[in-house]
Amino acid sequence: MKYKVVLAVCIVAITTAALAQIKPEDQIKFRQSGYTFMAWNMGKIKNQVVEHPETYNKEQVIAAANVIAAISSSGMGALFSPESATGKGWKETRVKPEFFQQPDEVKKHAMALNKEAKALVQVADSGDIGAIKTQFTKVFDACKGCHDNFRTKD
Amino acid sequence: MKYKVVLAVCIVAITTAALAQIKPEDQIKFRQSGYTFMAWNMGKIKNQVVEHPETYNKEQVIAAANVIAAISSSGMGALFSPESATGKGWKETRVKPEFFQQPDEVKKHAMALNKEAKALVQVADSGDIGAIKTQFTKVFDACKGCHDNFRTKD
Repeated sequence: MKYKVVLAVCIVAITTAALAQIKPEDQIKFRQSGYTFMAWNMGKIKNQVVEHPETYNKEQVIAAANVIAAISSSGMGALFSPESATGKGWKETRVKPEFFQQPDEVKKHAMALNKEAKALVQVADSGDIGAIKTQFTKVFDACKGCHDNFRTKD
Repeated sequence: MKYKVVLAVCIVAITTAALAQIKPEDQIKFRQSGYTFMAWNMGKIKNQVVEHPETYNKEQVIAAANVIAAISSSGMGALFSPESATGKGWKETRVKPEFFQQPDEVKKHAMALNKEAKALVQVADSGDIGAIKTQFTKVFDACKGCHDNFRTKD
């Protein structure tokens, strides 16, 4: 029991130390940057496989899928310290209080995005537009699942 | 000759069409997001291999290197239409006019960053902190080469 308490204190201390290096407004700025850059790449894939398949470019879709997978696997959880629950990065954060109250639920969404984004990289490599479209929808739904629960509407 | 002219016109038309889909202020916003998110990941690697090697975490450095390589290979050239030479994304763009006047020079810098960032992914996988530090410096210099020539100081 004592061991567990010490361990818990250590984990909190390490996490706090790591987070202390980045100011809350910079955490918000970095995470807004990550999501915005993912959005550009989601938009490129949507454009090439859903809206204008005649413009499909295999290498560009692979590159976009790589960005989405890399950003979603980059440990963005470190950019959500309790102090960053409110505040302004590039703009006011839209994160809901529930994000900080339901860590297990958040983790479920994050893991779903990781999984679907990695699968999108593999499917993109196949060059099968239909399959890419199907997998793209799964990534989109993973994004939306978190937005619906943990981000306020614009 | 006639074929070449027609081809050139087509390429310009296609490029223009592709760029027309993204408003200049959004191009600036997307590219600022990409560079800012790269900066967070450069900072993580610097922290773990240069400043505090006692905190080195192989998986985190690999993840950060993957982000830098994926973003640098994502075709950000599409986010620099002539109309985006001035204007505000998240903040006023700092791109210099020379960026649009010296495309071959810009391309040289972009290719250098691609090459060094891809090499960083491979070196990160080796887990050799010294080698990662050396390669990280090469990526940093590639970033700086472009900043010094094509970005105004803060």
